[in-house]
Amino acid sequence: MIEAAQGGDQRAIARLISHVADGDDSGRRIVGELYRLGGNAKITGVTGAPGTGKSTLVSGLITSMRSEPGRVGVIAVDPSSPFSGGAILGDRIRMGEHVDDPNVFIRSVANRGHLGGIASSTPAVVAALDGLGFAEIVIETVGVGQSEVEIASACDTTIVVVNPGWGDGIQTAKAGFLEIADIFVVNKADRPEVSATIRDLEAMLDIGPTTPWRAPVVATIATERSGLDDLWRSINQHRAHLEAEGRMEQVRRDRARHALVGALRDSIEHSVDAIGHETIEDLVQRRNDPWTLADRLLIEQ
Amino acid sequence: MIEAAQGGDQRAIARLISHVADGDDSGRRIVGELYRLGGNAKITGVTGAPGTGKSTLVSGLITSMRSEPGRVGVIAVDPSSPFSGGAILGDRIRMGEHVDDPNVFIRSVANRGHLGGIASSTPAVVAALDGLGFAEIVIETVGVGQSEVEIASACDTTIVVVNPGWGDGIQTAKAGFLEIADIFVVNKADRPEVSATIRDLEAMLDIGPTTPWRAPVVATIATERSGLDDLWRSINQHRAHLEAEGRMEQVRRDRARHALVGALRDSIEHSVDAIGHETIEDLVQRRNDPWTLADRLLIEQ
Repeated sequence: MIEAAQGGDQRAIARLISHVADGDDSGRRIVGELYRLGGNAKITGVTGAPGTGKSTLVSGLITSMRSEPGRVGVIAVDPSSPFSGGAILGDRIRMGEHVDDPNVFIRSVANRGHLGGIASSTPAVVAALDGLGFAEIVIETVGVGQSEVEIASACDTTIVVVNPGWGDGIQTAKAGFLEIADIFVVNKADRPEVSATIRDLEAMLDIGPTTPWRAPVVATIATERSGLDDLWRSINQHRAHLEAEGRMEQVRRDRARHALVGALRDSIEHSVDAIGHETIEDLVQRRNDPWTLADRLLIEQ
Repeated sequence: MIEAAQGGDQRAIARLISHVADGDDSGRRIVGELYRLGGNAKITGVTGAPGTGKSTLVSGLITSMRSEPGRVGVIAVDPSSPFSGGAILGDRIRMGEHVDDPNVFIRSVANRGHLGGIASSTPAVVAALDGLGFAEIVIETVGVGQSEVEIASACDTTIVVVNPGWGDGIQTAKAGFLEIADIFVVNKADRPEVSATIRDLEAMLDIGPTTPWRAPVVATIATERSGLDDLWRSINQHRAHLEAEGRMEQVRRDRARHALVGALRDSIEHSVDAIGHETIEDLVQRRNDPWTLADRLLIEQ
């Protein structure tokens, strides 16, 4: 299955990614193996409030990325009920123009039991696509607070999408967007107030801390591909900056740490299920307590 | 500090609970010790959409609980920004009538980095109050999907609060309220449509699976204490049912397992921080992978 997927067989990729996203034993073995083959994919995050046009923008980004050699993988993290566990398929439909491209793989992942986050399976799916040789990976997620922090630690370059008149500076700063944006996109730039919004963002960046990289503000009309070339140029400039500043090493270390935290979180339920009846009974009878037991279960390095 | 808190010293309780909620080393030691002393508190959860009058209802419940001997602890889980980490103090103000009662302890806990959940520190705070000898513990949480599942596994009795005209059956079923409600409260019962809402809930319960306990639907006007005695009676009936059916053993086992999962989650960040530089470097250099490492870090029992 891995060999077929590495060869670009779409059905093999889809089956393999389903295994990995499920997080079952075979999925964990597969992603572990693929992780060791990876490390070369460029990972781009796209986040922002619902309705800002993220999916159309991602679709435009795919076109830019496909102008160069290499396969493109997209992970769309959808809000979903923890009860149904099902992902909304809207994004896949919106990205329809790439459906027939055998070098584009799009997967919606549900953020089961992890509201507002990037879905616990996202680091594993990223690692799998990376190990399969995908050159570009895009993660699209709805911005609702904590997801911004998570997407930033999972990506090389984080794009925050806003709309004209989308919000005053306080709103943007409050949502934590300033801290994590490597690039701001003002999408739907044919609407009024676009220059005021760009000015607001620039003013916020002016009063923010001085950093080696200042997030550019790019105006786009994703439905018309307007501004998409500027955005692609900004992404490549940010990548060059990371490499030139030696920041890439730190990004890779942070990502490895982040993936490890995720893998441990995923293991916990499984590991608690494997705990013997007597151990749980010790807790019920108050002969032991969960905090002492947790410290014993996690080997200190 | 533990002795003073056991004696009912409010300031000692407040300091001790802060330690426990922080989850630092001393907090974990304290809660571990207190856990072993506990197991006797009755734990009641109150959940529902924002604005349904949960806090006023909890305030009324405290009055009912205080009509019997024993101290009452309230944990109000507030939505809060993962960036500020601060809890909104509104609930404490709304529960003002009990502020001067030395046998009532109210604490707001922030659900840092755990959006929509019951706050990772909640099981620890519950265990601490239980170990300090509190007879009744009430957890109030905003219902936004997954929190319902979490509150149900943390409590003996889960109360779901709705308002007249609050929603059709599909909405309620979708939010997962049906599965977790031991008691439905239709609060603000002086509003129109109250009988239609009660009828809707009863109809949903009719078509739902037959269970040994059928959730009663209680109409209340919490601001006037109307229906509060009915609610208190229903809570006691549910408790008697759990004991009579031998269900209490299962509830206690589930809760111990739930607390263990929480304690493990809390340990992870700490445990990853303690991991040596070379181990992370092995991941960065792809000589090892996070999933294999996670399995090694979690001892299989």
